[in-house]
Amino acid sequence: MVRGIGFKTRTNVDEAINSLISKIKPLETEAVNIYQCYGRVLAEDIKSPIDVPPFDRAAMDGFAVRAEDTFGASLMNPMLLRVIGAVEIGEKPSITVGEGEAVKIVTGAPLPNGADAVLMLEHVNLKGEFVEVLKSVTPFKNVSRKGEDIKKGEIILKKGEIIQPQDVGVIASLGYDEVKVFKRPKVAVISTGNELIEVGAPLEYGRIYNSNNPMIFAALIENGFEPISLGIAKDDEEEIEKMLVKALKFDAVIFTGGTSVGERDLVPKVVEKYGEIIFHGVSMKPGMPTGAAVIDGKPILMLPGSPAAALLSFYTFAVPALYGLMSIRLIARKWSRVRGIVQSRIPSEIGIRTNARVLWDDGKVYPIRTSGSGILSSLVRANALLVIPEWKEGYEEGEEVEVTLLRNITEVLA
Amino acid sequence: MVRGIGFKTRTNVDEAINSLISKIKPLETEAVNIYQCYGRVLAEDIKSPIDVPPFDRAAMDGFAVRAEDTFGASLMNPMLLRVIGAVEIGEKPSITVGEGEAVKIVTGAPLPNGADAVLMLEHVNLKGEFVEVLKSVTPFKNVSRKGEDIKKGEIILKKGEIIQPQDVGVIASLGYDEVKVFKRPKVAVISTGNELIEVGAPLEYGRIYNSNNPMIFAALIENGFEPISLGIAKDDEEEIEKMLVKALKFDAVIFTGGTSVGERDLVPKVVEKYGEIIFHGVSMKPGMPTGAAVIDGKPILMLPGSPAAALLSFYTFAVPALYGLMSIRLIARKWSRVRGIVQSRIPSEIGIRTNARVLWDDGKVYPIRTSGSGILSSLVRANALLVIPEWKEGYEEGEEVEVTLLRNITEVLA
Repeated sequence: MVRGIGFKTRTNVDEAINSLISKIKPLETEAVNIYQCYGRVLAEDIKSPIDVPPFDRAAMDGFAVRAEDTFGASLMNPMLLRVIGAVEIGEKPSITVGEGEAVKIVTGAPLPNGADAVLMLEHVNLKGEFVEVLKSVTPFKNVSRKGEDIKKGEIILKKGEIIQPQDVGVIASLGYDEVKVFKRPKVAVISTGNELIEVGAPLEYGRIYNSNNPMIFAALIENGFEPISLGIAKDDEEEIEKMLVKALKFDAVIFTGGTSVGERDLVPKVVEKYGEIIFHGVSMKPGMPTGAAVIDGKPILMLPGSPAAALLSFYTFAVPALYGLMSIRLIARKWSRVRGIVQSRIPSEIGIRTNARVLWDDGKVYPIRTSGSGILSSLVRANALLVIPEWKEGYEEGEEVEVTLLRNITEVLA
Repeated sequence: MVRGIGFKTRTNVDEAINSLISKIKPLETEAVNIYQCYGRVLAEDIKSPIDVPPFDRAAMDGFAVRAEDTFGASLMNPMLLRVIGAVEIGEKPSITVGEGEAVKIVTGAPLPNGADAVLMLEHVNLKGEFVEVLKSVTPFKNVSRKGEDIKKGEIILKKGEIIQPQDVGVIASLGYDEVKVFKRPKVAVISTGNELIEVGAPLEYGRIYNSNNPMIFAALIENGFEPISLGIAKDDEEEIEKMLVKALKFDAVIFTGGTSVGERDLVPKVVEKYGEIIFHGVSMKPGMPTGAAVIDGKPILMLPGSPAAALLSFYTFAVPALYGLMSIRLIARKWSRVRGIVQSRIPSEIGIRTNARVLWDDGKVYPIRTSGSGILSSLVRANALLVIPEWKEGYEEGEEVEVTLLRNITEVLA
């Protein structure tokens, strides 16, 4: 076979990816600190050991009261309650609210015993040691109830999610200081070609700089993998083989160059000695000479030497293979904008830019309940953001909108 | 003022961002190695010191010839050329092609003196020391010409770009082993609130875990900044001030909590002693209590304590401010999918998935010339990818398509 004559068969892109993924052995897992887990792939479901919030707490600054003591109160008929003290934030209240009594409280402070609602400051007048109640409240008004955000025992994040900042927030709010994730794939990168010289050296006639190693190195970092550059191998079977053996200490190997069907395309020939070629030659342009193999469950990617083709093949074939090492498939990328139909009215106030958290599911957009901005789980239950501009008064059911994905959408491999 | 009563004025979101950015002093620059520059912000234009490719080279495997020697050749009228040797890849050819002669050549090898075209293997028959030419070639057929991809002296990347893998490839192909970038902003993160305890500790009644520090820490990493967590400050002026002074050793400060208008919201009061409050209270939900100040040209972000509000405010206000430290504004994120109208026909072959590199400019989609997959600059001249599926035969002028942005679109601040 000679380069230029081309491949006898070309594997369809999706088939090539699927057959490669099916032969990959997932990596082991490890525990990492909460400050180090961003971008890692969850290897366990996150189940809440506590209720969030862990106690009934004030959702407004005001006075903790017994709701029934305010029934009938109005501007025309204010009612008086005696202020018997204050609850400090971050402390267990020692005070109990009795009939006709009120306790000063700030947002986030635990509701004292006896109280079941909070009067907002706007709806009272202070009169010495009394407050005048100008509006009645119902039980649990202006109270964030224990477990309202996340219930004890609830699974709030599933295995296979790529950990986002909002996930870190939720995991931390449950008190976890570490989390179980898949090991980060260590990927060896090798360029092949007699014509290559390393950057920084003077350019000799007939040579070109090795741009593929630094480029693929960067693309691996971008996608959350750990690159190791092994440098350049000459177009020589023995040298390629020595390099491959060195590279097999890592979790995956990416070759660029030497993967076509010319006399100097020796990479597939060497790789074949150690494992199974899954495909070689794909129906994609650029990128046709791409090949892949599996050696002891490790993916070996053979990307074209032409840099543009190498990078596009990297995204098309290497990224899915490397995610396969963590048992997931990437369906859609964070920050993608997708369209969908609003499934029930999403209100907003004119003049205020509203960040509506929504669940996007295959073209349908569902609002996520957010009773107060304190609801952290809303950013995890939602997977997309619908920004309602200042001049728009919400979206009606049936309207088409564009939302921004707040996370990579992944699927766990069977 | 008391929490719950609300802000007297609320600044419009875009105005708030613009007035903050206008007061920020950009960071200094530094040189970083080509393997370490991914995601950094270019602080210089990248001008090519060489032609790419640096010499005329074969774009196909075959025979280097003088085109005129093939004129008139056809299947019915084959012409004979004498093979006088071969050119090795990566070496300066010592051979010269004379009249009636041909030299064996592989893709990427330099064209020998005298030759001006390459005959493809498909169009010749080997006959001992001769080749039979079955098809004529014109001058420079199957030749990648010197400077065809990038011309010496050309500016190929501009100051203010966030360096992507394809940029790393282009910079390396020019031989640079380092590049000048803005220093990476070091950002101090502080949570405030008496109710907060650190993750890992047992939960006391009335307390909640500090989820904002790890969450904002992760969001800073996600966006390419360097986080330093300073932990928790109590709702106490002196403690907040001590923390602020410590934080001012870094390039920017992010507070969460204590930023509203209640009795315990002490952060703006402390910050005001050291610098200028640019805004406090914005017309955005959630996130209304967001504030920002500038101290000695450093942005100080005061985000709400509620985690969901804190994160959304981070993306809305902190990210633009921190990019401001590197003199850029982020217009659209990589991997965003945007729509546009094809401005001239983009061909593809049925049965082959084609990655067309396009320039997306405000709703218009222009194909980028890619003569061969070797054209690395195409991935830099283009800013988006149009994937043409296997079953589609290209796109016509005027068709609406969806493309995926291949880079963050940025704008250099004046």
